Amino acid sequence: MLNTVLLIVLSAALITILYAFFIFYKVGKIKIKNKKVEDVSSYIRNGAKTFLKREYKIIIIFVIALAIVLACLGLIPALKGKAEGVGWQSSICFVVGALFSATTGVVGMLIATKANARTADIVDEKGISGALKVAFSGGAVLGLSVVGFGLLGLTGLFFIFKGFTNPTEAEALKEAASIVNGYGLGCSMIALFARVGGGIYTKAADVGADIVGKIENDIPEDDPRNPATIADNVGDNVGDIAGMGSDLCESYVGSIISCIALGSTLITGNNITALLFPLLIAASGLIASIISTIIIRSREWKNPQLTLSIATYIATGVVLVATVLLSIFFLKDAAGNPMPKAIGAVVAGLVCGIAVGKIAEIYTSADYKSVKEIAKESETGHATNIIAGLGIGLKSTFLTIVALVAGIVVAYMFLGTYGIALAAVGMLSTAGITISVDGYGPVADNAGGIAEMSGLDESVREVTDKLDSVGNTTAAIGKGFCIGSATFTALALFFSYANAAHLVDEAGNLSINLLDTPVIVGLLIGAMLPFLFSALVIASVGKAGNKMVVEVRRQFAENPEILKGNALPDYNKCIDISTKASLREMILPGIIAVATPILIGFLLGREALGGLLAGGLVSAIMLAVFMANAGGAWDNAKKYIESGKNGGKHSLAHQASITGDTVGDPLKDTAGPAMDILIKLMSIISLIIAPILVNSSSLWEFLMTIINK
Amino acid sequence: MLNTVLLIVLSAALITILYAFFIFYKVGKIKIKNKKVEDVSSYIRNGAKTFLKREYKIIIIFVIALAIVLACLGLIPALKGKAEGVGWQSSICFVVGALFSATTGVVGMLIATKANARTADIVDEKGISGALKVAFSGGAVLGLSVVGFGLLGLTGLFFIFKGFTNPTEAEALKEAASIVNGYGLGCSMIALFARVGGGIYTKAADVGADIVGKIENDIPEDDPRNPATIADNVGDNVGDIAGMGSDLCESYVGSIISCIALGSTLITGNNITALLFPLLIAASGLIASIISTIIIRSREWKNPQLTLSIATYIATGVVLVATVLLSIFFLKDAAGNPMPKAIGAVVAGLVCGIAVGKIAEIYTSADYKSVKEIAKESETGHATNIIAGLGIGLKSTFLTIVALVAGIVVAYMFLGTYGIALAAVGMLSTAGITISVDGYGPVADNAGGIAEMSGLDESVREVTDKLDSVGNTTAAIGKGFCIGSATFTALALFFSYANAAHLVDEAGNLSINLLDTPVIVGLLIGAMLPFLFSALVIASVGKAGNKMVVEVRRQFAENPEILKGNALPDYNKCIDISTKASLREMILPGIIAVATPILIGFLLGREALGGLLAGGLVSAIMLAVFMANAGGAWDNAKKYIESGKNGGKHSLAHQASITGDTVGDPLKDTAGPAMDILIKLMSIISLIIAPILVNSSSLWEFLMTIINK
Repeated sequence: MLNTVLLIVLSAALITILYAFFIFYKVGKIKIKNKKVEDVSSYIRNGAKTFLKREYKIIIIFVIALAIVLACLGLIPALKGKAEGVGWQSSICFVVGALFSATTGVVGMLIATKANARTADIVDEKGISGALKVAFSGGAVLGLSVVGFGLLGLTGLFFIFKGFTNPTEAEALKEAASIVNGYGLGCSMIALFARVGGGIYTKAADVGADIVGKIENDIPEDDPRNPATIADNVGDNVGDIAGMGSDLCESYVGSIISCIALGSTLITGNNITALLFPLLIAASGLIASIISTIIIRSREWKNPQLTLSIATYIATGVVLVATVLLSIFFLKDAAGNPMPKAIGAVVAGLVCGIAVGKIAEIYTSADYKSVKEIAKESETGHATNIIAGLGIGLKSTFLTIVALVAGIVVAYMFLGTYGIALAAVGMLSTAGITISVDGYGPVADNAGGIAEMSGLDESVREVTDKLDSVGNTTAAIGKGFCIGSATFTALALFFSYANAAHLVDEAGNLSINLLDTPVIVGLLIGAMLPFLFSALVIASVGKAGNKMVVEVRRQFAENPEILKGNALPDYNKCIDISTKASLREMILPGIIAVATPILIGFLLGREALGGLLAGGLVSAIMLAVFMANAGGAWDNAKKYIESGKNGGKHSLAHQASITGDTVGDPLKDTAGPAMDILIKLMSIISLIIAPILVNSSSLWEFLMTIINK
Repeated sequence: MLNTVLLIVLSAALITILYAFFIFYKVGKIKIKNKKVEDVSSYIRNGAKTFLKREYKIIIIFVIALAIVLACLGLIPALKGKAEGVGWQSSICFVVGALFSATTGVVGMLIATKANARTADIVDEKGISGALKVAFSGGAVLGLSVVGFGLLGLTGLFFIFKGFTNPTEAEALKEAASIVNGYGLGCSMIALFARVGGGIYTKAADVGADIVGKIENDIPEDDPRNPATIADNVGDNVGDIAGMGSDLCESYVGSIISCIALGSTLITGNNITALLFPLLIAASGLIASIISTIIIRSREWKNPQLTLSIATYIATGVVLVATVLLSIFFLKDAAGNPMPKAIGAVVAGLVCGIAVGKIAEIYTSADYKSVKEIAKESETGHATNIIAGLGIGLKSTFLTIVALVAGIVVAYMFLGTYGIALAAVGMLSTAGITISVDGYGPVADNAGGIAEMSGLDESVREVTDKLDSVGNTTAAIGKGFCIGSATFTALALFFSYANAAHLVDEAGNLSINLLDTPVIVGLLIGAMLPFLFSALVIASVGKAGNKMVVEVRRQFAENPEILKGNALPDYNKCIDISTKASLREMILPGIIAVATPILIGFLLGREALGGLLAGGLVSAIMLAVFMANAGGAWDNAKKYIESGKNGGKHSLAHQASITGDTVGDPLKDTAGPAMDILIKLMSIISLIIAPILVNSSSLWEFLMTIINK
């Protein structure tokens, strides 16, 4: 059965990738009629390529270094045969993970920088429905390749590393399960660079463009005279396409890995259905995403919001049907009976994902009262705007946590910790379509930018604005989804870690004692890390933004023709600044994220590392929710005021709302999303070093032995 | 031995209270020469009295209700004889705790509103040294009565409830130890009202006074024409005197209670020295504070900063000597040998308290680079000022946590969890002098306000400004100390809770399993509560502030003579608004803080409640540090710019820094300090309901039984 299932899953992944490339090809074939559009678009594409090249040059060093470390650890005699998670096999998995995740990033950036121009260009010919289709197709290529490549690599490695000599399929899978953790680490590593580096890139460019362009020289957003404007548009792709895609790719792969790891503790005899079940759910999600994409692409749509919602509902529906069938006809418990309980766990995840997204919408959409409250408070100035936004962000943690806790409790009641991991898989099974919808946003946003920069007709800009405004809502929902899925994934990885680290109490039960002082110390340090990490990336945005400001001012001062529109600014210089700054600034946070779990593990022990993960998890979720929703609410409060409310443009309220939006930018687009990466990366590193920790004693243990002597 | 020790401690407490009243009498005897000063001072004193009266009317309802609940719980047959923490004895302890804590609040407010006027009035006669002495004496009355009453009540109740019929002293003390938890709850209840209600009061008045006075009508701070100015000065006393005193009183009592509770698990035979040791350390702290106060009061001092530092050093030195002596000659281990290890634990607490305060100073004093950074960032406007402040606040969690963790680890290495509780007692042993120093701040601040409002000479104002500027630093250090001590106290209470709730694993060891889903759920909800609580109190400040703005505008509009200085504004109306708003707005946060642990305990069980406390602890510390330091840094960045740096007054940087200061106010003076109360209150409520939870099964257990059937 094992080979059959793996081959089915592999086929589904391959079909998905092929379909993604088919859409890629179809979008690429659309001819751009307007020369100006083509020019602007090529600036953005080249900027994106520059960033990617530089980024991967740095990443490759990290990847090679870690790959060598992983391989070498396997050579330590004391670990031989015991520490399954390290060695050359893990090392290969790690490299493959990094490679596949990076590939989806490249594909996503290439399609996004093709689709954006074509979305703008097609408006006058095919109207909103044509533009909507192109923008959605751009997102779909990203979405489908993330899940396609993610599952292809994972399943392929399973296929290879399950070995062909193990006496039973169960043992084969168990062995492979600990090896493929490396694949998850590879995806995490790319996600760290893409999400955090991308976040710094995009906001540095944004801040620079806004301060010197909009505020100092009073030229509109996306004006081609602004040297930083191309970097700003490149940044949208770097952060929201490559960053978001790799973030969800990490969650996607992580959830499946941990579900398999937890499933392997449930194995009785040779019944491996619990291990294969998550792979099949994931495969059904791929098919669901393809079906949904085909339906959307084959018809004409006028209402963007409705279209995107329908896409999600179709995919969810297909996955639901598949879950019911698989739970009844495939999954078997120890006695060989079907396990309809699994339906409950998967549905808990699906519903929870949608709920968390919806809650994000409630706090960040101008249709609800929170954003209106901020707009109202803006009337009394900058300070009240900021206080109101902080309050909304803090408050939004309540409903979000209630939804997450409800999901966790329900999933647990159905199937224990395996149920929680299944819920994560369920939530992420529709990631293909979720990413498509999310990826639509930056494409539409860029299309608007290109329309403005190319001087297209006002009517075109109206259409792209309409497409873009929906993108804002989907972005907020997407962020909620990223946080929700990261929570479930990190939680599942946390359980897997405890398993791998053999954390058992005296009676032999899996346990991390919260009353142990090292655990409490771990909990405290873990809870502090997201605060420190946020501080570092926020400071990085500030520093990079300042450099951008200086450069844009310099260009305006040295060549006055630029502002008159008679000379082209030096876009590349700005792209260069953002690229360099973002890559340099993310090294320290990156090292902290990777090194802390290792340090704590070896200094304070496995239990303390468990505390670190738990503390990091809860603290990161709260900060992520707080920052995402405060930032989103400030953003939309500004847009709400700009639509003429509370004094409208050029009022004190408007100025105050611009302050709020600027404060929110690094919170919602840099620090907030970085939280997801931080907890998943720390969890997966811990999972990988767990077998080593089992075989070595910590400094703490050593000290306590001396003291107690 | 038991009776002897208790009587010694009681005597020390009585002496301290008597000495406090002696200083109170001496300060009161100083005659105010200036009629205007006397008038203004009486407005403030009457405002303070109004607030206290109203506050206690509400508190009394809460106290009676909870007292009845506690008493009735003891009547439930199932709990009879088992649940020692409830019943009429606990109920009495609770009422006494509330009464004593409330008394210190009243004494503190009365002396502060006497000392402030006398500090201002005495400047022309006795110069800075005379004024400094009066201001310090004002703080000292508060500090000495907090620790004096705190220890008197606690020890007195021990004396009564240890019973006179128990066969051994050990059993007598153990029985009394669980009863006196109620005393801690009483102190907590008052602290909640004083700190949170006081925080809302003071900021509502401040915001109202600033917006309409300073910004809209361009009249200086503390101008008598401003109707909200008296409320603003009253607020300083409500928040920084009564609030701060009750906060530290709660920590003080809580640390001793939990240390005794943990000591009682160490008892072997009839060796009760581990239980009496914390009481004796506390008593030595009282004597140390008296000695220090006598020395400061008996000499002439010119440099305020130096004087306050010397006061702290003297007290610390005396406690150190006492600790060494007591550890060697009093404390005995199971074998009857002296336990010099206790010195290490106490010193860890003392040093950690000073370190955390120092770190707060580094991030919030203009002598260091963080504040200068914010000032620099203010040059580019409101948004960059806010981002810089948020960054500093987030970053400051790092060093603070390192210091706290170091303290915890060292204390634990010496004497396990009892060592951690001892460190808390050590840190708080000098609370008498810490509170004196901290209480000096608002007295000096008020003195400046009175000097301004009474139109005293510019030279007087210069002296009070000098006294006040030191007060800002001591306030930041004091906040750090409050957070540090709350952390240790809450941690010690957490261990005591686990003991009281009999949380043991299958092998019989004390344990809360972090891998249990209910514990994780508790952890998540616990970590969310501080965010929700902050959101609520920040919103309350906003609402109350808005009402104040409306009222001040109304007075100015209806009677133009007020602004011309020809008519007195209606101060009482503003006091009334602040009083009503603060008391109404704190009911919801209060109910959340009290009800959540009870709900989680009964719904999800004792383990989950342990998770809730741990999650709440780490999250509350981070938020408290973040808010206190961000707020303090913004405040001092504004003062730094006002001193002529980065463009000086009336520059864009100055405006931006005012925004930062306004944003920081509710964070540092309302939400931040409320975090300390939240975690301690939740811990002590949990400790009290623990015996009931042991004897009942939770909804979760019930559901899991059904599901697993």
